[in-house]
Amino acid sequence: MADHTIQFEGAAEPVSVPTGALLSEAARLAGVEILQPCGGQGRCGRCAVQILDGTVRRRSTLRLSPADVEAGYALACQSVVEGDARVYVPPQEKIERRLTTDRTVAEVTVPDWYDPTTRQAIRRVNLTLAPPTMDDQTDDWSRLRRALRQEVGLDEVEASLGTLRGIGTALREGEWQVAAVLDVNRWDCDPCRPILVDLFPGHPPDDTPLWGAAIDIGTTTVTVWLVDLLSGEVRAQVAEYNGQIARGEDVISRIIYAGKSEQNRQEMRSLVLETINTLLETACKRVKAQPGEVYKVTVAGNSTMIHLLLGIPAGSIRLSPFITAVNHVPSSPAHEVGINIHPAASVDCLPGVASYVGADISSGVLSSGMDDSEQITLFLDVGTNGETVLGSSEWLVTCACSAGPAFEGAGVLDGMRATRGAIEEVWVSGETYEPTIRVIGSVKPIGVCGSGLIALLAELFLTGVVDKAGHVNLNLDTPRVREGEHGPEYVIAWADETQTGRDIVITDVDIDNLLRAKAAIYAGFTVLAENVGVPLGLAERVLIGGSFGKYINVEKAVQIGLLPDLPWERFQFLGNTSVRGAYLALLDPALRARVTDIAARMTYIELSADNTFFDAFTSALFLPHTDMLRFPSVEAAITRKE
Amino acid sequence: MADHTIQFEGAAEPVSVPTGALLSEAARLAGVEILQPCGGQGRCGRCAVQILDGTVRRRSTLRLSPADVEAGYALACQSVVEGDARVYVPPQEKIERRLTTDRTVAEVTVPDWYDPTTRQAIRRVNLTLAPPTMDDQTDDWSRLRRALRQEVGLDEVEASLGTLRGIGTALREGEWQVAAVLDVNRWDCDPCRPILVDLFPGHPPDDTPLWGAAIDIGTTTVTVWLVDLLSGEVRAQVAEYNGQIARGEDVISRIIYAGKSEQNRQEMRSLVLETINTLLETACKRVKAQPGEVYKVTVAGNSTMIHLLLGIPAGSIRLSPFITAVNHVPSSPAHEVGINIHPAASVDCLPGVASYVGADISSGVLSSGMDDSEQITLFLDVGTNGETVLGSSEWLVTCACSAGPAFEGAGVLDGMRATRGAIEEVWVSGETYEPTIRVIGSVKPIGVCGSGLIALLAELFLTGVVDKAGHVNLNLDTPRVREGEHGPEYVIAWADETQTGRDIVITDVDIDNLLRAKAAIYAGFTVLAENVGVPLGLAERVLIGGSFGKYINVEKAVQIGLLPDLPWERFQFLGNTSVRGAYLALLDPALRARVTDIAARMTYIELSADNTFFDAFTSALFLPHTDMLRFPSVEAAITRKE
Repeated sequence: MADHTIQFEGAAEPVSVPTGALLSEAARLAGVEILQPCGGQGRCGRCAVQILDGTVRRRSTLRLSPADVEAGYALACQSVVEGDARVYVPPQEKIERRLTTDRTVAEVTVPDWYDPTTRQAIRRVNLTLAPPTMDDQTDDWSRLRRALRQEVGLDEVEASLGTLRGIGTALREGEWQVAAVLDVNRWDCDPCRPILVDLFPGHPPDDTPLWGAAIDIGTTTVTVWLVDLLSGEVRAQVAEYNGQIARGEDVISRIIYAGKSEQNRQEMRSLVLETINTLLETACKRVKAQPGEVYKVTVAGNSTMIHLLLGIPAGSIRLSPFITAVNHVPSSPAHEVGINIHPAASVDCLPGVASYVGADISSGVLSSGMDDSEQITLFLDVGTNGETVLGSSEWLVTCACSAGPAFEGAGVLDGMRATRGAIEEVWVSGETYEPTIRVIGSVKPIGVCGSGLIALLAELFLTGVVDKAGHVNLNLDTPRVREGEHGPEYVIAWADETQTGRDIVITDVDIDNLLRAKAAIYAGFTVLAENVGVPLGLAERVLIGGSFGKYINVEKAVQIGLLPDLPWERFQFLGNTSVRGAYLALLDPALRARVTDIAARMTYIELSADNTFFDAFTSALFLPHTDMLRFPSVEAAITRKE
Repeated sequence: MADHTIQFEGAAEPVSVPTGALLSEAARLAGVEILQPCGGQGRCGRCAVQILDGTVRRRSTLRLSPADVEAGYALACQSVVEGDARVYVPPQEKIERRLTTDRTVAEVTVPDWYDPTTRQAIRRVNLTLAPPTMDDQTDDWSRLRRALRQEVGLDEVEASLGTLRGIGTALREGEWQVAAVLDVNRWDCDPCRPILVDLFPGHPPDDTPLWGAAIDIGTTTVTVWLVDLLSGEVRAQVAEYNGQIARGEDVISRIIYAGKSEQNRQEMRSLVLETINTLLETACKRVKAQPGEVYKVTVAGNSTMIHLLLGIPAGSIRLSPFITAVNHVPSSPAHEVGINIHPAASVDCLPGVASYVGADISSGVLSSGMDDSEQITLFLDVGTNGETVLGSSEWLVTCACSAGPAFEGAGVLDGMRATRGAIEEVWVSGETYEPTIRVIGSVKPIGVCGSGLIALLAELFLTGVVDKAGHVNLNLDTPRVREGEHGPEYVIAWADETQTGRDIVITDVDIDNLLRAKAAIYAGFTVLAENVGVPLGLAERVLIGGSFGKYINVEKAVQIGLLPDLPWERFQFLGNTSVRGAYLALLDPALRARVTDIAARMTYIELSADNTFFDAFTSALFLPHTDMLRFPSVEAAITRKE
């Protein structure tokens, strides 16, 4: 096979690749970063590049207009090299760092029951040992164990090889005065042999913090709470985009990417580890601690995130019958997982239920307390996947639907993340059909984010710009509705009002994608409710977790049929329930055991195996729903308008 | 500081080192191998080099004659670079590979009680799992545990992260037919949660071996026995010099070397790991197995060897009050220890008693069976250190004496290892004082090895060439006795009969070193016996372990007062008792527990803290002893001669 020379504009050196290589591979070789949010499947169109000289074979031009192709555009992930070429990579929409400290800081109150001396598994104890003499040549480790038995009452203490390597030095440097950090209760053993995690010279002041961390690995965002285990206080909260985003926006794309080679699997693992380790460093810096002083972490996240973190092949999650390798992951030492805290600290990944109902949900249920309440509660975590739990202290059922990333801006022509320049709220006049918009950062708009799309859809429906089926009514007397390149569309902002210099629109195709997403989520509720014979209306509380939920306008979400039509006071936004559950599990082994109990108690309903799901989904593909009796408040609003 | 250029003859490139560097460091930089058996302390003289041009500052010229220094010789480890130099490294006595298969193969009979299905902790079981379906989405790990519970009756099976990473692939490649390797009994837990060590696709034939290994790490020699755990048979025996020898011949030198820097400690660890891993590879090749198929190893060795293997600082072993970091080392996975077998296989280091009575002795006692016998037994392991155990099923006392390496040829002018060219047996005529010698390999002699030295000393004493105090009698009518460069000496071989072209002699200084070594060992017996009030003569058996012991002539060892004067039939050579004990512990967790019991039962007597030891040592500094009543058979032999 012949080799061809590909020169990327701006790259120092051309690269040489054989016939049949993809442009995206050539780019990586050249050190040119090209985002592939869909994982290189040609779905998202974000990897579009321009061919300046030479030609490539386009396997797909999905998301490229004929004009784009005419202008030389090609999708890097779908372009096969068959000759020399010169390629221009347009400036990509950078992943903006929207997550500032203020917006992500959750209010956390230390539970009033918390007592580090009875609840907490991690303990620090000061020891004063009798130095060895010729009459007492007991080895260091036995001497230390003897002191732990006699002074602290801990029997049969164990230690890893790594910890044993350090004890002799610590004992002598501290002149036989040392502090020991122990893990005395690992919730899944009874009795537990305590583990010596660390030993250091001297006796620190009693109020020296003892650090632990709760981590939520979201597909999009990773959150770390740094906790002083002595007081139980969350002393630092930090969050950052998951570094894996550059290799796929949703779990499916990432599984595909990771499954391509052992190297890719390692890369995905490294990417999320890098995010976690940077966050831990930042959090520690904020409280003047060292990451090596963190003695335990509890991790929540969906099943794919946990598999990728641990380097466990995740391929079977994606393929029918959708099986995880492991739901209940045993604790592993941090150095094996690759998290840069104390190497012997344990990393406790919370248990998940199934491929698409992961530890983030078990953890969320714990933090919601619904498993301990007599009230029938509907818990949902809206994100790329919509996971739903229905139940009470008596029973719990759960399901997940692949909502797709439409509400996160993907699959929508002018969709975008909730970053600066995103339209986040929309109102449409029922008379002039003119919109009023609110933009994040109060700048000229670039596109529309999730909450903006929900508001826009609700407003367009209530004003009759869009009909029940989601079609734009082209007969209205306004230039805002028109036949566009992609079919009927509504113009939200004119080119001269935008940052891009192009009209921002929503098309029939976009609306169809949004309807599919919201229908999937709503159908989930329906199937759960039908499965247990409990009408949705009986849900006494609707708890919404996930950071996405925080910015949703409940009224408008009900109006498009995303949320069930229940009195507003039943709705409650809980924020990041996943990290909150991990925090609780970090505080108390009994709560940790309860997460396992929750995961075991939840009956998982596989929607793709459920005939009723397709019917429920089809019925929900309308605004707000085929069956208007389910949405009396929306019916009333329409009637009022008419 | 200025840099200087050092050119080693034969090395491709000169190296540049700063003022103050040692020649030995420059040599390492230049890739020139210089042996440092004493660990770079300037004691052994083996690193002598010749300075051809330039000068070095000699910190010590110990072991160099004035003529040597005149000729430009310097000890590399004691020579400080202060200017450019050209250096010649004389051909060193290479560490010969004396250990051929034939001489090291021990006869091993599988104990008749052995039954892999009841005794052995490592089990292999074939499993056939129900494949997952949409109606049974149980995760892989739970599915596997369910099968282990239902098909094999094993509950609560655990696995490490590394093992979990492989199960999904194994299950699918095997189409849900797999073989699981489990560790079901770790002797120190009851009940034990079984550990899944490995899972691989398919069902192997029932007679496929299941590999384990017993390892003895001697200061000088490392021995590996590869065992088929199904039959219990030792299928390969291999041995090799411990790679650490180049950095010190005895444990003290090695502790000093390892303690100099973190890098040195890592180097010592790597050196012995390299030896072990090479041996395992050789052994596996011999039976057509892969090292990755070895699922457990049991390791014996003295306390220093175990510390250095595990990378645990050993400094406190050397300094009063002589404390080990850990005598009872917990099992660690092979990948953490660095032994290249299955990464999740456990490495079980047997327990030691004290700094100088290590796991090799606990293991030796197990294999001797003395802890289970009513007979009073004296067990000794003669090597660089002489460890002695006295006792029965009722009681066990032990001590160690630093015999020094004289019997291994170090500290003796013409001493050498028992390699080709070593005089291994000597007879001296009582009339002419002419010697008859036997040389290993039947070649011209180079020097004298341990068994040769014992024989030589006994013969010289019995023929009156050497007196009770160890002095050569210069008044004899033979050119073989003379005043040499180092004082009075006896010539064993004339220059024209030797490979070196120099006379091979034994000097008063050499004899003094040998007397000290044998006196230390004998004093050990004496103190032990006195401590328990049991005269040595009551010892019904004298069991001699260690490979050194194999070649000793008991009669001559008694004649010089190294062994107690007891009827010959009470002596028994057991060979390498350390690896034999490790083999037994590998076969049966109950025997493994017995080693721990033995280590706990042995009362350790610290000789350096015992006033009677010095007296016993001083009394034993004669041939055979001050108190001839202790050696009636020798007394009789002398009388006969006279």
